[in-house]
Amino acid sequence: MNMNMDKRPLAAIAGAALTICVTGCAATEERPMPVVRIADLEIDPVQLDAYTAAVKEEMATSVQVEPGVLAIYAVAERDSPSKLRFFEMYADEAAYRAHVASPHFRKYFEATKAMITSRRLTDAVPVQLSEKKK
Amino acid sequence: MNMNMDKRPLAAIAGAALTICVTGCAATEERPMPVVRIADLEIDPVQLDAYTAAVKEEMATSVQVEPGVLAIYAVAERDSPSKLRFFEMYADEAAYRAHVASPHFRKYFEATKAMITSRRLTDAVPVQLSEKKK
Repeated sequence: MNMNMDKRPLAAIAGAALTICVTGCAATEERPMPVVRIADLEIDPVQLDAYTAAVKEEMATSVQVEPGVLAIYAVAERDSPSKLRFFEMYADEAAYRAHVASPHFRKYFEATKAMITSRRLTDAVPVQLSEKKK
Repeated sequence: MNMNMDKRPLAAIAGAALTICVTGCAATEERPMPVVRIADLEIDPVQLDAYTAAVKEEMATSVQVEPGVLAIYAVAERDSPSKLRFFEMYADEAAYRAHVASPHFRKYFEATKAMITSRRLTDAVPVQLSEKKK
């Protein structure tokens, strides 16, 4: 499969603004909000490079092949590079369940479970998701 | 000013995939990565509605009028609704500095500082930012 990833920076493709509201602006109930999950992981520093390679592959595949995986952002704390923060957006709960059952996620999960020394998963409720239109 | 916000859900405008890489894929150095900031705030529950109204206005304005504010996502922990998590993307450090010096941010900051009981700000280094093309 040709992944054909677009690597332009967000800034280069940013135009006008998009704001998704849960309450407080004129959004209708017909417009579902994304499901947001947050994960705070701590990785064994000795295995950080291997973990990073595995998770990057899993993230790229998920966003490429799963229609309901809207975004997975992974960042490291600047002062603690083995502490990773994930901010993930799914179209709905079914999309999230499909994601964690997917072959690429299962492969990632099995390959990395011994690399993760601490894991905190948080269910989140969007307050507002404001972004540039791409 | 006509804010003209697009309130379509992310899912409805999601198409192909976009992956931004710091290392490990063929990104060139000419393509700057966004600057990511994470904020974990705890709000006085009695003042949560007032805080939420203020921050939503500030977020929408920032993304609308500041070219370098790419996205501000605000979510609440499902089990602790007064604990808010912010995931913010800026075009570069100058965009972040301009944002915190902007009149709308200063107004928000002054209006809400007595509502925030705990604040943890984290500088983050992107590992990978994978998202659907909009």
